[in-house]
Amino acid sequence: MPIRLDDRDACFEQDFQNLLGAKREVSEEVDRVVADIIAEVRAQGDAALIAYTSRFDGLDLTPQTLRVSEAEIDAAVKACPPEQLAALETARARIEAYHLRQKPQDAWFTDEAGVASGWRWSAIEAVGLYVPGGTASYPSSVLMNAVPAKVAGVDRVVMVAPTPRGETNPLVLAAARLAGVDEVYRIGGAQAVAALAYGTAMIAPVSKIVGPGNAYVAAAKRRVFGQVGIDMIAGPSEVLVIADGSANPDWIAADLLAQAEHDVSAQSILMTDDAGLAGEVEKAVIGQLATLPRAEIAGKSWADYGAVLLVADLEAAIPLVDRLAPEHLEIMTAEPERLAARIRNAGAIFIGGHTPEAIGDYVGGPNHVLPTARSARFSSGLGVLDFMKRTSLLQCGPEALRALAPAAVRLAEAEGLQAHGRSVTIRLNL
Amino acid sequence: MPIRLDDRDACFEQDFQNLLGAKREVSEEVDRVVADIIAEVRAQGDAALIAYTSRFDGLDLTPQTLRVSEAEIDAAVKACPPEQLAALETARARIEAYHLRQKPQDAWFTDEAGVASGWRWSAIEAVGLYVPGGTASYPSSVLMNAVPAKVAGVDRVVMVAPTPRGETNPLVLAAARLAGVDEVYRIGGAQAVAALAYGTAMIAPVSKIVGPGNAYVAAAKRRVFGQVGIDMIAGPSEVLVIADGSANPDWIAADLLAQAEHDVSAQSILMTDDAGLAGEVEKAVIGQLATLPRAEIAGKSWADYGAVLLVADLEAAIPLVDRLAPEHLEIMTAEPERLAARIRNAGAIFIGGHTPEAIGDYVGGPNHVLPTARSARFSSGLGVLDFMKRTSLLQCGPEALRALAPAAVRLAEAEGLQAHGRSVTIRLNL
Repeated sequence: MPIRLDDRDACFEQDFQNLLGAKREVSEEVDRVVADIIAEVRAQGDAALIAYTSRFDGLDLTPQTLRVSEAEIDAAVKACPPEQLAALETARARIEAYHLRQKPQDAWFTDEAGVASGWRWSAIEAVGLYVPGGTASYPSSVLMNAVPAKVAGVDRVVMVAPTPRGETNPLVLAAARLAGVDEVYRIGGAQAVAALAYGTAMIAPVSKIVGPGNAYVAAAKRRVFGQVGIDMIAGPSEVLVIADGSANPDWIAADLLAQAEHDVSAQSILMTDDAGLAGEVEKAVIGQLATLPRAEIAGKSWADYGAVLLVADLEAAIPLVDRLAPEHLEIMTAEPERLAARIRNAGAIFIGGHTPEAIGDYVGGPNHVLPTARSARFSSGLGVLDFMKRTSLLQCGPEALRALAPAAVRLAEAEGLQAHGRSVTIRLNL
Repeated sequence: MPIRLDDRDACFEQDFQNLLGAKREVSEEVDRVVADIIAEVRAQGDAALIAYTSRFDGLDLTPQTLRVSEAEIDAAVKACPPEQLAALETARARIEAYHLRQKPQDAWFTDEAGVASGWRWSAIEAVGLYVPGGTASYPSSVLMNAVPAKVAGVDRVVMVAPTPRGETNPLVLAAARLAGVDEVYRIGGAQAVAALAYGTAMIAPVSKIVGPGNAYVAAAKRRVFGQVGIDMIAGPSEVLVIADGSANPDWIAADLLAQAEHDVSAQSILMTDDAGLAGEVEKAVIGQLATLPRAEIAGKSWADYGAVLLVADLEAAIPLVDRLAPEHLEIMTAEPERLAARIRNAGAIFIGGHTPEAIGDYVGGPNHVLPTARSARFSSGLGVLDFMKRTSLLQCGPEALRALAPAAVRLAEAEGLQAHGRSVTIRLNL
C-alpha cells in the first residue's frame, strides 16, 4: 500500500521530509567499476568496446560493425508498421515546432560610455545521445533528445544504443532517421559513454553527452563531466497529481499508473484536499491494476513509492509542491491555471483534467526529458539551449577604454594584479 | 621558454594535440578525502564545520560565529578606501546593466490543434557562492557571481569564504554587501560545499552552488552534483591572443602577462601569421616581466604553459581557435570584427586592440566567469540563466486531446506502455 500523509497530523513534517529524502545514490562499487571501464576504453579504444560488448551484451562485433549501417536503418524503417511511423512523424513535427520557439536571440548594444557588448549563441559541434537498450529503449526519447539538438544546429548527432544479443528496436532506428541522427553505434553502458567522451579510432569524440541510462551510465556521465558536457543525471521518473473534489478519480488513477508502469522505482503521488477523492482514487488504482499488462511493475512502484497526501486546503499544498519539486505536475482542480501560476518548482505542469502526462510524453510538443529527484528546484527540462553555448562579446574604442580605465585599474590594484592594471594603462600612453 | 609551434612544420598536428591535451585531472586521493569530509559534515553538521575550520584554516569558531555578522560587514565596508568602493560600484552597475538584458522571456501559445503550450522561467530559491580565501580572494568575482543571481531574482544568496587564521578581505565583504548577498559564512573547502548542499543546524541548504575553488572544492562540487546544481568545474584561466602585423607587441605582451600572473597554471597563447611580431612579443614579455610584482608566478606560467603559434595565414587560424576553445580570446587584427564573427568556440571575445581582457575582468559588463580547459566547446560563461529554471506548460481541452490522442496512444502501445495509452483513452469515453 502507498503511504498516506495528512498535513493535520503531528508527524506530518517528519513524514514529508522522509518522502523528500527517499532517494538512492550511486554506490561506490558502481563508481569503481565505471572508472576501470573508462580507463580501459581510453587505453584500448575500439578493442575495449568490442570486449565489453561481448561480455555485457552477448554480442560479438568488429571495428567495422560497431556502427549501424545506413542499409540496416533503411531495413528497420521498412520493418515498422506505417501507422507507427506516421505517429512518430506527428510527434517529431510537434516537438520541432515547440522547440523552434526556444531558439535564443543574440545581442549587441552600445552604452553611453561607448562600450559595445553583447553575446552570440552557437550550436555545439557534436553531441552524443545515449539510448538505453532492452525494455527502456524508447523511440519517443530519441525524438526528445535529437530534435532539439538539430533545431539548435548541432552538426553531428551521434547515437549509442546497446543491442543485447543483437536485438534492435526498429522503431528506435526509425526515430533516429526521422530526427536526423547522423551516426548510430550499437554499444552501451559506461564503455559507450567513454567512447563518446574520448573517442576511439572508429568513433570521433563529441563535446556533450545527453540521454538517460542505468546507474553505470549515470556514474560514467558524472566521471566524464568536464571532458565533455552532460545533461542532468536522470533518476526514476515521478508524477505529482494535485486534485480537488472536481476531479475524476478514474482519470487520476490512470495517470498514477501510467507513471508507475515505467519502473518499480517510479513514484506516483496524489495530493488532495478531498479525503473522499483520495479513497476513490486508491480504489480505482486497484481496479485498473487488474487489467494492466505491466501490473507487476506498476503495482510494486505504487506499493513501495506511491503516496497520498491529504492537505487541509489547496493553499497549503503550494509550498509542499515546491518542496517536492516534481518532475511532472498534473493539476486537476476547479481553477487549474490559477494554481499553475503559483507553482515555482516543477519540471513540467499539465494543466487541467484533459491534459494527461502521457500526451506530453509523446506528442504535446514540450520535452519529456525533465529534472527528476527534486532537481526541478535548480534545473530545467531538456531544450534547445542545452545544445548551444553563448560567447560573450566586448569591444572598446580608445575613448571607451579611457572611460572604463580608472575603475578597472583601481580594482586590479586592489586585487594585487598589477599586470592586469598595466594591460590597461599601457594602451593610454600614460 | 614557452613552446613554439608553426603550422607549416611536419610535427604541428601532434604538437597541437599535445597542447590541447595538457590538462590535469582530479586525483583519486583528493576525491577520497573529499568523500570523507562530505560524509562527516552530513553526519555531524556544524561540529564538523568547526573542526575542519580549526584544522585547515587555523581558526576556532562556534556555531554562533560561523556566520559573519552584519556589524562585521559594516566595519569591513568602513575599512575600504572610498575610491575602491566607488570602483566596485561602477563595476556592479555595469555588470547589472549587461545581465538585465539576459532575462529570458516566458512563452504561451496555442497551435492549430487547439493545444496550448509554452514555458515559464523562475529563479532558483537559494544559491551558494563559493569565494576562495587567500590570494585568490577576488572582490570582482563576488560581483560576477552574485549580481546575475540577484538579477535573476534568487531570494537567498549565501556566500562562503574561508578566512585562514581569521584574515578577511574587507573588499570581498564590501562586494558582497553591494551585490546584495544575504548571508556570509567564514568556511571553505569541501566542508563548506557540503554544508551548502546538505545544510546544517546553522546553515540552511541551497539548491545550487557556484564559484571557483581549488581541487578539493571542485571535487566536492562534482560529488554533490545532483543533490544540488553546480556551475562548471573551473580550471586554470587562459587567454588566446590572435594578432597580425598591425598589432602592438607591447600591448600583447601586457595581456599575456596579465593572464600569466593569475597562477602558475594559467596559460597564455599567442597565435599570429607574423613571425616578426611573435619575436617582438616574446622580447616584450621578458622586458615587462622585469618590473612586475608577480613576476615569479607570471614567469613560471609563461615558461611552463605559454605558447606561440605561427600560422601561415589567419584563415588557417580559425579552426585551430575552435579546437582550443579558449576561455578568453583577444583579437588584434586589421579587421577584428570579421574574424570574431567566424569563431565558434570561445568563452568571451575581446574585439580590437583597445579591449584588453582586464577591462572585461572588472568593468566591461559581461561576466568574467567563463568556461576553461576547452569547455567553451559545450558551455557558456555564467549568466542570468544559470540562476533560473524553466517549467514547461501544456494544456489541452477535450478537442485538443481528441486530436492528439491517436498518435499518443499508438506510440504508447509501440513502447509497450499500455497504462500510458489508457490514461489518454479513459478521457475520451471510448
